Amino acid sequence: MNVAIGIDLGGTNIKYGLITEKGDVIKKISLPTRRNSGERQILSDIAAEVVRLQQEFMGQNTYKMLGIGVGIPGPVRADGYVETCVNLNFKKINPAEALSEMLKDMPIVVGNDANVAALGEMWLGGGKGYKNILVVTLGTGVGCGVVLNGRIVFGKAGLAGEIGHIIVNPNEVDQCNCGKRGCLDQFASAEGIVRNAKRILEFSSMSSELRNIPKDELTAEKIVNIAKNGDGLAYFILDYCMSFLGKCLADTAYVIDPDVFVIGGGVSKAGAFLTDMIQKHYEKQISLSEERTPVIVAQLGNDAGIYGAARMVFDKET
Amino acid sequence: MNVAIGIDLGGTNIKYGLITEKGDVIKKISLPTRRNSGERQILSDIAAEVVRLQQEFMGQNTYKMLGIGVGIPGPVRADGYVETCVNLNFKKINPAEALSEMLKDMPIVVGNDANVAALGEMWLGGGKGYKNILVVTLGTGVGCGVVLNGRIVFGKAGLAGEIGHIIVNPNEVDQCNCGKRGCLDQFASAEGIVRNAKRILEFSSMSSELRNIPKDELTAEKIVNIAKNGDGLAYFILDYCMSFLGKCLADTAYVIDPDVFVIGGGVSKAGAFLTDMIQKHYEKQISLSEERTPVIVAQLGNDAGIYGAARMVFDKET
Repeated sequence: MNVAIGIDLGGTNIKYGLITEKGDVIKKISLPTRRNSGERQILSDIAAEVVRLQQEFMGQNTYKMLGIGVGIPGPVRADGYVETCVNLNFKKINPAEALSEMLKDMPIVVGNDANVAALGEMWLGGGKGYKNILVVTLGTGVGCGVVLNGRIVFGKAGLAGEIGHIIVNPNEVDQCNCGKRGCLDQFASAEGIVRNAKRILEFSSMSSELRNIPKDELTAEKIVNIAKNGDGLAYFILDYCMSFLGKCLADTAYVIDPDVFVIGGGVSKAGAFLTDMIQKHYEKQISLSEERTPVIVAQLGNDAGIYGAARMVFDKET
Repeated sequence: MNVAIGIDLGGTNIKYGLITEKGDVIKKISLPTRRNSGERQILSDIAAEVVRLQQEFMGQNTYKMLGIGVGIPGPVRADGYVETCVNLNFKKINPAEALSEMLKDMPIVVGNDANVAALGEMWLGGGKGYKNILVVTLGTGVGCGVVLNGRIVFGKAGLAGEIGHIIVNPNEVDQCNCGKRGCLDQFASAEGIVRNAKRILEFSSMSSELRNIPKDELTAEKIVNIAKNGDGLAYFILDYCMSFLGKCLADTAYVIDPDVFVIGGGVSKAGAFLTDMIQKHYEKQISLSEERTPVIVAQLGNDAGIYGAARMVFDKET
């Protein structure tokens, strides 16, 4: 059976999955990223692990290795070129070419982690059965991947799906990591939710369970859970933050009109409570068609990356 | 040589182009649309003209007819289904199937006119040499077509590229045709420019050549020309209106990151004067990449539709 190794290269860990073209995981490993040792070291760590996996599984003639897919946390162009990847200290490098040299012409495909995860969700997760999806990951930041006609959209400079930096509030005074003010990231990410909670708690005199939590211990997870328990102010805060995401999804619908919006990342653990909220704000912004695009929860969690990375390899074959 | 008939089916006229796969026009015709006679009449008018063109050119064995492409002014799904097309009084119809019956299984492809025009611009116009473009048409309304990887993006309900209805100003009090308030259409279209000019002329006491024109004779063309001649208030009005378009283009860049933005439609006759203005506002909104996406002028004018429609046929063959 055809297999591929899907790799999710993060700033903390590197996850490896040996995956069949049917989507079965034969082996899954997570190893720490030696990010301070430079890009060559990280890549040769990967090459070594790939060789090890091949020795363990490829001798049996049961499997045919088609190649390696890698998701990395930064913009990747369609040709695999990476201008800069802050989390890994990568600069002006083509990781696919570098890995290919180390691995004797093994086919390598590289993509942005959010895009790769989106492909994984389309293949085996929340977006299963669809070919045109937009996956938003609400974690520390807002990640996003776009899949059209079953394939990842890269964009000219690898910026497709960077909806976290759409400016949604021109009146914002705080600065986003990107240097602008008022990005979606500052509202809908886990950090954004906490930031807005602190502000609104200060502004409003409404009573709330949130006031029992020391400010530096506030997390998006706590805010979501307290909102779920019926706390009015916590609900208002989350609803306010998600209104910006709903607006952004409506904007993307007017650009690519996807089949479905899939919401992943830590914040999405809130499930339908959260996606219903986003759906409501999305629908307020949409006209022209009566057919609403569903907002649903992602299903693969942290494994979306290895699935999507493997899928890139299988797609390349066809 | 392989040829196709590209048809631009408008509310007023139907344009036909017999076009080779190299992009040469053998014959171009424009006939009035009999829009009050019903959808069957319009389609059978088209079928009759196609038969006539075939009789005139296809007997010579010089050309091989590959099919018919049609652009229509409303949302079209990827399977050709049209839920509603206000300008033509089409409702719940598949024009490709209907035409195919009349034309004895001639291959027919149907697309939204703005998307089809975008494909034309990519093939032979402003977007030549690129595979991922976004074409914005500034006419009575704001039209837009998205081409990715050389192919039109349709979207689930045929709404891809409807950026004219992205809400860009939540404080707007006037209502857009779509029922919402604050759509891009209300600012960047020819009508939108005039609407804003009237408001700003009333609000401001600044002197301007625009004040010599009776209000009901104001047109976007006059405003653009007067702005070009150095009139401060006219420049301010146009700059204000284009700031919303620049913001929208930045938002679309964070979704699909196209190679180039192509600006067409009547307002685009202003040329680089206009596109420079849009480019400036686009760049103010963009962070993350130093590589700026160029904003350029469309080149095919009213012929973009017939070229793009023919190109859909050639694409279907490959």
